[in-house]
Amino acid sequence: MRFVDTGLEGAGQVMLQGNAATGLLFLVGIWWGAVATHSVPVAVGAALGLVVSTATGMLLNSDDASMRAGMYGFNGILVGAAIPTFLAGGAMLWVYLVLGAAASTVVFMAVANVFKTWGAPALTAPFNLVTWLLVLAAFQFLRIRTSPLAEGQFPQHVGAAAARADITVGYLWDTLFRNVSQVFLIRDTGTGIVFVIALLVASRWAAGFALIGSAVATAVVLGMGADADAIGNGLYGFSAVLTAIALGTVFYEPSWRVLVYTIFAVLVTVVVHAALLSAFAPISLPVGTAAFVIATWLFLLPKKRFVPVQHDTIRGGAAEPRQSSGSA
Amino acid sequence: MRFVDTGLEGAGQVMLQGNAATGLLFLVGIWWGAVATHSVPVAVGAALGLVVSTATGMLLNSDDASMRAGMYGFNGILVGAAIPTFLAGGAMLWVYLVLGAAASTVVFMAVANVFKTWGAPALTAPFNLVTWLLVLAAFQFLRIRTSPLAEGQFPQHVGAAAARADITVGYLWDTLFRNVSQVFLIRDTGTGIVFVIALLVASRWAAGFALIGSAVATAVVLGMGADADAIGNGLYGFSAVLTAIALGTVFYEPSWRVLVYTIFAVLVTVVVHAALLSAFAPISLPVGTAAFVIATWLFLLPKKRFVPVQHDTIRGGAAEPRQSSGSA
Amino acid sequence: MRFVDTGLEGAGQVMLQGNAATGLLFLVGIWWGAVATHSVPVAVGAALGLVVSTATGMLLNSDDASMRAGMYGFNGILVGAAIPTFLAGGAMLWVYLVLGAAASTVVFMAVANVFKTWGAPALTAPFNLVTWLLVLAAFQFLRIRTSPLAEGQFPQHVGAAAARADITVGYLWDTLFRNVSQVFLIRDTGTGIVFVIALLVASRWAAGFALIGSAVATAVVLGMGADADAIGNGLYGFSAVLTAIALGTVFYEPSWRVLVYTIFAVLVTVVVHAALLSAFAPISLPVGTAAFVIATWLFLLPKKRFVPVQHDTIRGGAAEPRQSSGSA
Repeated sequence: MRFVDTGLEGAGQVMLQGNAATGLLFLVGIWWGAVATHSVPVAVGAALGLVVSTATGMLLNSDDASMRAGMYGFNGILVGAAIPTFLAGGAMLWVYLVLGAAASTVVFMAVANVFKTWGAPALTAPFNLVTWLLVLAAFQFLRIRTSPLAEGQFPQHVGAAAARADITVGYLWDTLFRNVSQVFLIRDTGTGIVFVIALLVASRWAAGFALIGSAVATAVVLGMGADADAIGNGLYGFSAVLTAIALGTVFYEPSWRVLVYTIFAVLVTVVVHAALLSAFAPISLPVGTAAFVIATWLFLLPKKRFVPVQHDTIRGGAAEPRQSSGSA
Repeated sequence: MRFVDTGLEGAGQVMLQGNAATGLLFLVGIWWGAVATHSVPVAVGAALGLVVSTATGMLLNSDDASMRAGMYGFNGILVGAAIPTFLAGGAMLWVYLVLGAAASTVVFMAVANVFKTWGAPALTAPFNLVTWLLVLAAFQFLRIRTSPLAEGQFPQHVGAAAARADITVGYLWDTLFRNVSQVFLIRDTGTGIVFVIALLVASRWAAGFALIGSAVATAVVLGMGADADAIGNGLYGFSAVLTAIALGTVFYEPSWRVLVYTIFAVLVTVVVHAALLSAFAPISLPVGTAAFVIATWLFLLPKKRFVPVQHDTIRGGAAEPRQSSGSA
Repeated sequence: MRFVDTGLEGAGQVMLQGNAATGLLFLVGIWWGAVATHSVPVAVGAALGLVVSTATGMLLNSDDASMRAGMYGFNGILVGAAIPTFLAGGAMLWVYLVLGAAASTVVFMAVANVFKTWGAPALTAPFNLVTWLLVLAAFQFLRIRTSPLAEGQFPQHVGAAAARADITVGYLWDTLFRNVSQVFLIRDTGTGIVFVIALLVASRWAAGFALIGSAVATAVVLGMGADADAIGNGLYGFSAVLTAIALGTVFYEPSWRVLVYTIFAVLVTVVVHAALLSAFAPISLPVGTAAFVIATWLFLLPKKRFVPVQHDTIRGGAAEPRQSSGSA
């Protein structure tokens, strides 16, 4: 039973909520969306990644507060969803996924130890790092196929045709919620709605800031003229959703000042995401949630110098769960 | 008035001099050179970047010694000069520049907090990081043009024709001072002379080491056979100028031993700069002053192990101004 | 005499053994292999790099325990072996090599100071960093040729023909020992055997774990279907050999639990190595021992959280030699 509870909290921690009910609803949303978009392997991978990374955490470290807060599951579940999304292959792919999920726990411990130096959390850096390594390495292994990946190319300026968006209410509605669903690599409006409900269970602030992050990111990329299909599929907003939850509600106490700071951070998140799309083009690498990690680190690390902001809520980073979002 | 003083010191800190008169002369040199080379937007961008980043520092942190030393302006002024150099666009470009200049202040605080761990300063790492993100992201945005950027390509070995330099006194004279003017992305001999005079106002050592850095770098790249046009335009020397000022006069006390160490660091700066030119070729990214940042960090971080070098002048990094270069 | 002793220990530290006899046997193996594979400049470069980097350490820091443990030689010897392997040129190449070997000592001090923060050693990160800079910079210098480097290209999936291995006893035997010889960039079975004997002189555990790392890595890449020629030449195993020695015998006390953990780290090392091959393809950069450095860091940094593992043997990192492997 404790293993199940820990695993569900791990799922919840993907959106920084150490809450088992939220985690359970996330899993429901993933299955719903995976079935709806004909990508069941993504849901299977997510479940397997969650179990393997949580079990690895238990094997390596049997008694720890981080364990109970679900710290060893949220990177593994994402590795598990990412591998069937970006790679293909038979049985070997699942061995590969298990290796990656187990490694995500070790990498989490390493990154958390390093960033503890500055009072900052590991966030989903381990997921991104492990997924990049697995995806890049796959080029060298005959038994793993990289076919879903784009061909390597030099960065190209977006064309006027690609950037022309047909902005309807339906397009905006879909984008708003797909930005949320894509946190788990699912492109499905219904899944996004389930995820927002799951956030509501843990914290109204988290649900609200998720939607603020999604809306602001969408407005910015439509204004700048980014690829309209990518925007509509939620591919420009998932990192912004995470940045908004992290800065607006988890690591700073919500306030008007924090709201302005968080919106600024969301703008930076969008720019970082677009920059990584260009930088990774030659090596066909998916960006993942790296923009969330980089922008959130940049906006957390100066914290000692911000006088008027409430710092009491910053603890040892995500490693210490907030009282208000603890498991029931 | 205090805002003006802080802004001018911020301009001076680009060459590590927290001196308002030096900063004012830098601005004069930038305007002179921008007019002379028909690139007035670079001067406008520099002024705007300086104001925005300094104001952001004030908004985020109203009472701080770093503020008064101009710490929140020197990255913003460079972002402001770089954006019109590398990108194009209408009103959106200026919005983009303002966002970048404001972000440079947050990134400065983040980088300064991290490197404080090892007693090392942030240097111009925030400028480089922010400029890279803005330039790379521009590929994904229709409303920002990347036209001045070179096409992405695999690294190519320099050709014999390109490396053939017609070394005259005029070529060497221009190179010597353009290496200095390019610190602010200006290719103008007169501007370089104004900048050296500006350094003289703050510190004779700084002016001397700037010229030593410039001369050594020029000798090395001519000896190795680098692209002669790039050398003549000052594109191989600006980071070396900064390394020489930083190590020779700011972070270590000038001495014969420090002179040798600094010249060694200048050689490494030139190699790092050339390496980044190759590494960034596929993604069309300008190198900026990253070679200065990397080489200076590498030569500052071992400091605890260097017994005979005077360490008294190393304080909390650039964040704490030297007495001798404080504002009047 | 002390200089000779220090230099030999520096050679030994490449495989984490501060033992002069081991270092001497390494030099013997390098000369043997360089002659056998018609690459004498590699052996000359290694000897020169060792002398220059050790002398630089003495000049910068005359009295230090790190000095006596050979800490300033093991990166320089590798830079010295790598430059004639990856670059070509006349007298300028040797000047370039000397600059790089001297820089490797400064970079070692910088990296060691940074990673001391988390109780982790610098490993061969300085060698990799310096070699990458020198190789990339060479594209920009007419007087250094990059001809032995592959052309830049986008990552390609390995073909079925290339991955077809003709697995004979001879192939496995060669691979097992070439994985060890390639630590010094030598492709020679006899050299690998000499190296294993050299390890035996210092520690039976080190020799055993070197062979375990080599065997595990070979089994994995053959199972995944990597390029069979590269495997047979030892190019997929040298980082795994180093990871196995470092984690299995140097930084953790050998035990069954540590054996399992080390084998897991070897799997990750192989994936990291393959990933870097893909990532570096566009810029023609050799991977070096970066996979060893990254994987070993990732598996060392979580150490405070691993309850059942013996931590007593972790000291300040490689900078502090183990009693059992001290020089005679």
